[in-house]
Amino acid sequence: MPEFAIGVDLGGTNLRIAAVETTGRIMETITTGTEVARGRDMVLNDMCDAIRELSSKFQGKASLLGVGIGVPGIIDMDSGMVRESPNLPGWQDYPVREEIVRRLQSPVILENDANVAAFGEKWLGAAQNVDSMCMLTLGTGVGGGIVLNGKIWHGMTGMAGELGHNTVEPNGVKCGCGNLGCLEQYASATAIKRMALDAIASGGAPELGKAMSGSSEITSQHVYQLAIQGDKPAQDIFRRVGEALGISVSAFVNALNLPMYVIGGGVSAGWDAFAPAMMETLQKRSFVYSTTNRAGKRKTIVTRALLGGDAGLIGAARLPMVKAS
Amino acid sequence: MPEFAIGVDLGGTNLRIAAVETTGRIMETITTGTEVARGRDMVLNDMCDAIRELSSKFQGKASLLGVGIGVPGIIDMDSGMVRESPNLPGWQDYPVREEIVRRLQSPVILENDANVAAFGEKWLGAAQNVDSMCMLTLGTGVGGGIVLNGKIWHGMTGMAGELGHNTVEPNGVKCGCGNLGCLEQYASATAIKRMALDAIASGGAPELGKAMSGSSEITSQHVYQLAIQGDKPAQDIFRRVGEALGISVSAFVNALNLPMYVIGGGVSAGWDAFAPAMMETLQKRSFVYSTTNRAGKRKTIVTRALLGGDAGLIGAARLPMVKAS
Repeated sequence: MPEFAIGVDLGGTNLRIAAVETTGRIMETITTGTEVARGRDMVLNDMCDAIRELSSKFQGKASLLGVGIGVPGIIDMDSGMVRESPNLPGWQDYPVREEIVRRLQSPVILENDANVAAFGEKWLGAAQNVDSMCMLTLGTGVGGGIVLNGKIWHGMTGMAGELGHNTVEPNGVKCGCGNLGCLEQYASATAIKRMALDAIASGGAPELGKAMSGSSEITSQHVYQLAIQGDKPAQDIFRRVGEALGISVSAFVNALNLPMYVIGGGVSAGWDAFAPAMMETLQKRSFVYSTTNRAGKRKTIVTRALLGGDAGLIGAARLPMVKAS
Repeated sequence: MPEFAIGVDLGGTNLRIAAVETTGRIMETITTGTEVARGRDMVLNDMCDAIRELSSKFQGKASLLGVGIGVPGIIDMDSGMVRESPNLPGWQDYPVREEIVRRLQSPVILENDANVAAFGEKWLGAAQNVDSMCMLTLGTGVGGGIVLNGKIWHGMTGMAGELGHNTVEPNGVKCGCGNLGCLEQYASATAIKRMALDAIASGGAPELGKAMSGSSEITSQHVYQLAIQGDKPAQDIFRRVGEALGISVSAFVNALNLPMYVIGGGVSAGWDAFAPAMMETLQKRSFVYSTTNRAGKRKTIVTRALLGGDAGLIGAARLPMVKAS
């Protein structure tokens, strides 16, 4: 009998649940209308209902290995509790895993959402042919996940992979984390929007100004559209995104010498606009990158994620498969 | 019968060889007069003679597990060849390991010198109670080694641990690696000397100027002496060392969340002068550091190396022990 697992993506605004075979085939995906903002108990109820629906549908035809859940927060892996999550008010210090196990009577694994996205890309996406990789997720913020020898690297307290808070500009823009000049302040959707507003305010970006007055607010997509149409101020913003990514990725290339670094998240849709500056910066700033380039066959690869918004769902479903094997 | 291994430190100017028991007891150390500058064949001959001398002395009383050699260069772990080493002209692409094995008929492991120093501190030094750690060696340059779950992390091409080339100042001082503003340009002995000369040239550092005119050249030790005596320009230099280290270590704390980061090498003798600025920077720039601090028991530790110049020798001797177990 084939085996399958259920993956849950609790990130962003919606709750998504998928049944995935161990072969990687997605059997079915449910996107509930449940907004995470509606609170912990509502989310837990709807999640458990959807998991039950999927598992009973495939039970008999395939055997359920367990449930993996990607959560936007820091997880205590031992207790299965959410330690910190600004995006999930009320979930902190609540026995999330225990509660779900009690309702479902299945093995449940909780994992940080950026880690499961990396794990998804490692399994079925850009990094399926390497053992070790690191993924940067460029969204509202910048998250990260590191997979070493096929396993998610958690670090001492489950906080490893906080790649968005590397200092790229020592006296740069103040970050919510308390630092100045974090990568997140130059390579997130929020940062692109801020840089666009700054450019408009300076009076030197008329096209960006028009884009903003034509819609309720300016987004990173607006800036990207203008950049690929050749608008200089928009191109400058994406050049800055690429340079900041280049500085950060250089540090990780030099430190870890991994075979692959994957750039994902919504902002990675603007790859064409920021990748040239990122690659140029890497070549200039990382001698490990340029040396392994010279080595020919064993070249460091920096590439775009392949699974889009499904990376987390797929990576979450993978968790109980690896645990079980 | 007790077991022992032989460690070789090929770094710096001299060739040192030690016989070390698996208990960690150093049985005997030989410091040969052989300068590495005298060339490959001379070094290999003297090295093999000294290894033979030590092994025959203890053979019968203890059983030899093998030989570990710390080399200042990038090692191809598969072939045992030195891939790049500016400090060992003539060693590149020569079958070093094979040649030593042929002469000694013992298992031989070659390893990068910064990696063996980390491995030494992990075994018998500052990091003996943690499984994973990272060490920065502040010497003429800045080297690094990473140990994860008790094993040296080599990365894809053996180049992992190049922690001295993290960008800490995007438009900073040009580095030999091609980058601008590498950690090495702010936290090595060479950098301290350069900053002292700059301060003297600016006319604002009379005490540093006196120190230089009193000796043939100014060293990081001179600067340290003045700093602890309260000389402001010398203190400013060490403050800059600490800030640069703080930026770099923050990035690794956020990315890897290791339990311990060890600062070693000659410049670490100036710990009192740079550690306060380093710790302050870490607290300010790494929320992973400050969060795990709050967590109380599982605090990130950033500390000084304990084994001094013996770290590499001890780590090299450890290599065949771990391989054998």
